[in-house]
Amino acid sequence: MNYADKALDTHKKLRGKITINNKDNLDSLEKLSTYYTPGVGTVSSLLAEHPEQTRNYTWTNNSVAVVSDGSAVLGLGNIGPRAALPVMEGKAMIFKQFAGIDAIPIVLDVHTADEIVEAVKAIAPSFGGINLEDIAAPICFEVEERLKKELNIPVMHDDQHGTAIVVLAGLINATKVTGKSLADSRIVCLGVGAAGTAILKLLYKYANPKELIAVDSKAIISSNRSDLSLEKLELFKFTNSADIHGTIEDALAGADIFIGVSRPDVITKEMVRTMNKDPIIFAMANPNPEIHPNDAIEAGALIMATGRSDFPNQVNNALVFPGIFRGALDNNVDHITDEHKIRAAEALAALIEQPTKDLIVPSVLDSRVASAIAKTIV
Amino acid sequence: MNYADKALDTHKKLRGKITINNKDNLDSLEKLSTYYTPGVGTVSSLLAEHPEQTRNYTWTNNSVAVVSDGSAVLGLGNIGPRAALPVMEGKAMIFKQFAGIDAIPIVLDVHTADEIVEAVKAIAPSFGGINLEDIAAPICFEVEERLKKELNIPVMHDDQHGTAIVVLAGLINATKVTGKSLADSRIVCLGVGAAGTAILKLLYKYANPKELIAVDSKAIISSNRSDLSLEKLELFKFTNSADIHGTIEDALAGADIFIGVSRPDVITKEMVRTMNKDPIIFAMANPNPEIHPNDAIEAGALIMATGRSDFPNQVNNALVFPGIFRGALDNNVDHITDEHKIRAAEALAALIEQPTKDLIVPSVLDSRVASAIAKTIV
Repeated sequence: MNYADKALDTHKKLRGKITINNKDNLDSLEKLSTYYTPGVGTVSSLLAEHPEQTRNYTWTNNSVAVVSDGSAVLGLGNIGPRAALPVMEGKAMIFKQFAGIDAIPIVLDVHTADEIVEAVKAIAPSFGGINLEDIAAPICFEVEERLKKELNIPVMHDDQHGTAIVVLAGLINATKVTGKSLADSRIVCLGVGAAGTAILKLLYKYANPKELIAVDSKAIISSNRSDLSLEKLELFKFTNSADIHGTIEDALAGADIFIGVSRPDVITKEMVRTMNKDPIIFAMANPNPEIHPNDAIEAGALIMATGRSDFPNQVNNALVFPGIFRGALDNNVDHITDEHKIRAAEALAALIEQPTKDLIVPSVLDSRVASAIAKTIV
Repeated sequence: MNYADKALDTHKKLRGKITINNKDNLDSLEKLSTYYTPGVGTVSSLLAEHPEQTRNYTWTNNSVAVVSDGSAVLGLGNIGPRAALPVMEGKAMIFKQFAGIDAIPIVLDVHTADEIVEAVKAIAPSFGGINLEDIAAPICFEVEERLKKELNIPVMHDDQHGTAIVVLAGLINATKVTGKSLADSRIVCLGVGAAGTAILKLLYKYANPKELIAVDSKAIISSNRSDLSLEKLELFKFTNSADIHGTIEDALAGADIFIGVSRPDVITKEMVRTMNKDPIIFAMANPNPEIHPNDAIEAGALIMATGRSDFPNQVNNALVFPGIFRGALDNNVDHITDEHKIRAAEALAALIEQPTKDLIVPSVLDSRVASAIAKTIV
């Protein structure tokens, strides 16, 4: 059975990948009186006076909502909330497996920034944190920014920051292997949606690279583009300081590092051959990378990473989000800052003592990962 | 340790009464590829084409949101969403223990009917049903009515209908014991909030009693009241056909059945003594009944029921809501009708083969209850 059939089959058999369990057996009237009325009234009365104590008496110390409106799901696009639900349940499984977090999939039947913000704010007291997921750019930027401002629990759009953190971790180790420095490199990022934007911002913050070049589906973000959205104009403020023009081919000629968060099969061997010696290629399009790993290596790539589990160097944000929220919940951190992200990336990279071209990030199954990252969220 | 201290202590120790568990161990890359990317993409693609299949591939076939804005929690009033959360977690425990349902506590930071309706509609695709809880009257009526109309999953405000169903079940058996008939009785309901309104409506529908009298905190709902809300005017359309005026004392004189969903200690022994022979008293104020059971019995009550577990005849909606939603989820019932409620009450009553004055409803721990009710929701 291929993976597609196996996934359909397994999902149909399980009818839901997560379940709620009680922490105690409600098998006596005494327990009912303790956990429910009348006993619970005492707890509610206390919290009515001291709402800030809620996390000490409820599951909000360990619960995170995984919120999506289904507008940018995997590589599938705007497939709606119901079709997004299996992905959010999968994410909840990962939260539990690797960080012990109770994650609740919340898929939204609303799609404007205002509506999403209002819905999340309305339900926010139910949870200890908000993981935004698979919300299309540019709405995702406004939604995250406003929720971070208006809520006092951690809010993170994982497609942005989880991806940026794992990419930075991978690049820290990849540059160790190749002897390049991020600051001295020409780094090209193809794709400036949620992930690309966050990657560019974090790389700028971390290394202020000599050349940091953003490329969208049309061309390099440069001064001769008259079609740029506000978000892309923002990117131009700190990228492409030499203001080079042209296509992805032009950007890659002489580049040291390629980061793809765009579409399958848009990079050719020829383009890789125009890059500097020992290029680093992170091709993370879903489900198929921008260039097949075999092709990239044949064309001279020294380090090749994808989002896939069937090749070395799986640069996957499942390495990041469980630990980020574990740390935020345990350490009462209400806002994930750039400093947190950088420390998390460094901690993740540091788990590989001796990086090699086929080992720049830990396996997503590595049980040390979540706690190593959680320790940095303080 | 008294029950209040024990409840505080237990809640503080557990820090949340429910937890999420994975239905399978994510311990291999193969499983990650099945439950998450890339495998889950196949499931999402299928559901993008066939959203009506969502319940066959996700936990919505077994999940219910327990939604409250914290505006009318137990007898504590408007204590807000955070203070309401322990109650909703307790409710989730009961859903799991007695019906195997995955219930997710959702407490809302919004309080108008419009805002509550919008928030619930926004998150509705995440769940298989909506249990509304502890939302103050009259907002609760509009919220439930609109959500029932606008969503195609079961929506039930438990304070209304769970209470009404268990009261009807109790009265069916209580009248068997006393030899009274509901149709020929004078029935007085003190309290016309969420519970009282639903009780009156269901009793009217079930038995069209000779005298059905609604009393609020001021007086009998009658034509000489100039202060009635729209909701109370609606009640007057089918209650108090003789249009008697006066206080709760006037209503109880000659009454057969008293139903209290109001405040502690508002009924005196003297009032009970003015009722007809072998009166039935359901005193369900939280946490203390309208009259203490010992006092009521001393004053001549033949059947005495409360919401409490430390006296006989615990008329508690925990007997009802797990089975209602179990049936609705299993049988794809999108709307809980009056007929469902009546059948559920009859099924609950029928579990007691030989009712006695101290046994008119099953114990909330009786494992037969949920499935007996679930069978009627078809």
